[in-house]
Amino acid sequence: MRIGLLGFGTVGKGVYELTSARADMQVVRVLCRRELQLPDAEVTHDFNDILNDESIDTVVEAIGGLHPAFEYVKAAIEAGKNVATANKAMMATYYDELLPLAQEKGVYLRCTASVGGGIGWLSELERVRRVEAVHYVGGIMNGTCNYILDAMARMDLSYEEALGRAQALGYAEADPSTDIDGIDTWHKLIVSANVAFGVSLDITGIPAAGIRNITKKDMDTFKKHGLLCKLISTGKYIDGVYAAYVQPTLIPLTDPEAAVPMNYNLITLAGDISGRQSFFGQGAGRYPTAYNVVQDCADFLSGRGFYCAYGKKVGVCNEEKYSYYVRGKVDSWLEENTEETWGKAIVTKPVSVQKMHDWLKANPDAFIAALPRKAL
Amino acid sequence: MRIGLLGFGTVGKGVYELTSARADMQVVRVLCRRELQLPDAEVTHDFNDILNDESIDTVVEAIGGLHPAFEYVKAAIEAGKNVATANKAMMATYYDELLPLAQEKGVYLRCTASVGGGIGWLSELERVRRVEAVHYVGGIMNGTCNYILDAMARMDLSYEEALGRAQALGYAEADPSTDIDGIDTWHKLIVSANVAFGVSLDITGIPAAGIRNITKKDMDTFKKHGLLCKLISTGKYIDGVYAAYVQPTLIPLTDPEAAVPMNYNLITLAGDISGRQSFFGQGAGRYPTAYNVVQDCADFLSGRGFYCAYGKKVGVCNEEKYSYYVRGKVDSWLEENTEETWGKAIVTKPVSVQKMHDWLKANPDAFIAALPRKAL
Repeated sequence: MRIGLLGFGTVGKGVYELTSARADMQVVRVLCRRELQLPDAEVTHDFNDILNDESIDTVVEAIGGLHPAFEYVKAAIEAGKNVATANKAMMATYYDELLPLAQEKGVYLRCTASVGGGIGWLSELERVRRVEAVHYVGGIMNGTCNYILDAMARMDLSYEEALGRAQALGYAEADPSTDIDGIDTWHKLIVSANVAFGVSLDITGIPAAGIRNITKKDMDTFKKHGLLCKLISTGKYIDGVYAAYVQPTLIPLTDPEAAVPMNYNLITLAGDISGRQSFFGQGAGRYPTAYNVVQDCADFLSGRGFYCAYGKKVGVCNEEKYSYYVRGKVDSWLEENTEETWGKAIVTKPVSVQKMHDWLKANPDAFIAALPRKAL
Repeated sequence: MRIGLLGFGTVGKGVYELTSARADMQVVRVLCRRELQLPDAEVTHDFNDILNDESIDTVVEAIGGLHPAFEYVKAAIEAGKNVATANKAMMATYYDELLPLAQEKGVYLRCTASVGGGIGWLSELERVRRVEAVHYVGGIMNGTCNYILDAMARMDLSYEEALGRAQALGYAEADPSTDIDGIDTWHKLIVSANVAFGVSLDITGIPAAGIRNITKKDMDTFKKHGLLCKLISTGKYIDGVYAAYVQPTLIPLTDPEAAVPMNYNLITLAGDISGRQSFFGQGAGRYPTAYNVVQDCADFLSGRGFYCAYGKKVGVCNEEKYSYYVRGKVDSWLEENTEETWGKAIVTKPVSVQKMHDWLKANPDAFIAALPRKAL
């Protein structure tokens, strides 16, 4: 396998290093803006040098972001090259364009590193689906948020202090919006649900609430009620209905998710036969992420090119009901739906995910968290 | 794929049900002692009816135990049939006979259901090894012991009460020795380490201590020190040395293992590149176990017949040191190695796993548990 590598940042450099000692795959060209000398590969500033190199059968996309990553990947597929990528934003956004295109062109497309870093999560979903249907995916998919929430709960830090520590440790970026607003989790949920259910979910109907507005006082209140706050993604396929959403969620201390420390992930699937299985590990980092990109390339070599065939585009219906902890301006809708008061916040009667997130959109300074429900 | 199914108990019946709706594999003959009528398969009391049926390409062994399971599996391999099994005792005991034989005969042999029930644990080790070396496997591999220890810790039950509940719930057998003496965990550790490290460990050097002698008073003492007791398996390959052992282990409440409730498993691997990953799920049960047997058959169909090539037979060296909680008759060796006293028990200075387990063998009424050490 001759690889054209797009990007030489954290993940790209990792892929270059991990493949350099392998006999079955080698990076032969690298697209990189910086000046760079590599012993085993030619470095170029021009994507066309990779696109037009017919000896390159596989493109590893490690630029990140939507553009020009999407255009490069699309062009590579159209040119008949396999693509392995860690780019969850691109895969979540263009899933229903890229996957059919790859199948039409007879090339492979995988993105195992895009969810769970070094965890073999998407590849396991692929394996599971050979024998059973999956009706649930979700859990803690973002290490940055988990680090912040864990630090607030265990070290009694304010949100700002916890975020500062996460940034100092390299777990959060200077602009942490993608993580703390739940966008990263949202991307990962979409890709996971698409693979698990064999569909292409209409992403416009999938809401995400983040942790940007959480305070130490919220945390103290949760603690008083024996609860912990985690950012949880949920994807379900039950009785023909798809549901998908991301939201801060209060969980009892006995839940497996409660024991997830630092920047770790705990991602869960529930299969109709095998039951509930969870995967625990670091969901990011150069080598874990690069490792799963190399695993995808190894899968290409053994003829496993897709997780599943492209499935039909389907809408989600988030009519499931939770009681929500809500701290924000109490308007008439909220007043109508108030069940009790927790400090300066209220707890709602059971309301649908859809309605709660609609309210949140109109009240962006508020903080919401779903209360515990019965186990799956 | 035409399957000859050996045994129609919990797992066998599950395999029959799960395959009955599939187009790519079907159970055509079933070996069963009882009188039985099946719509889609012939039932026989005679193994030779399966062995001599040339249309049968795959044997699923679901009898359990060493004999005659081993003889049947060996004969099936010699007759050129693939074998999928959930039998950890057989695979641990005869690994270095069955695996080379299958490779020599050009047939497949898998046993994914033998460790972790429905968790894709052995198959994930196979995947991991394509890209990196594994240097650690282990964790909570036995749901019965975890149920008992969890019930004692959380419900304040005596050992006898907890065992009684496990038996009432079907998590423990009438004679629970295989589980509580750590033998089941020992089998699972051996199979896991063999696959993870690509070797055949000399099982005679691998010690197992169980939980038979633990008491409520021990538990109270652990609680006082902020610790929980779990039955933990450990397999390591570090600096060219293999280590493997099973022992009750005291862990801080913040460890992921501490959050494992009921009869769940938490099994961990550490790879050189991807780092630490854990797998959480129910480690037993009809459908999870049968599910992974069917997964093995699906792997046969796609040409994945072994986790890894048979590796050389190697010895283990358990010179790693722990401090141990020991409650038992204090002889001169124990007195020499006593560091402090915890209630009626002592805590040793760091002593090697080998020495501690040698002592335990001479003092079978004692209870030992390793104290927490630094993280991996």
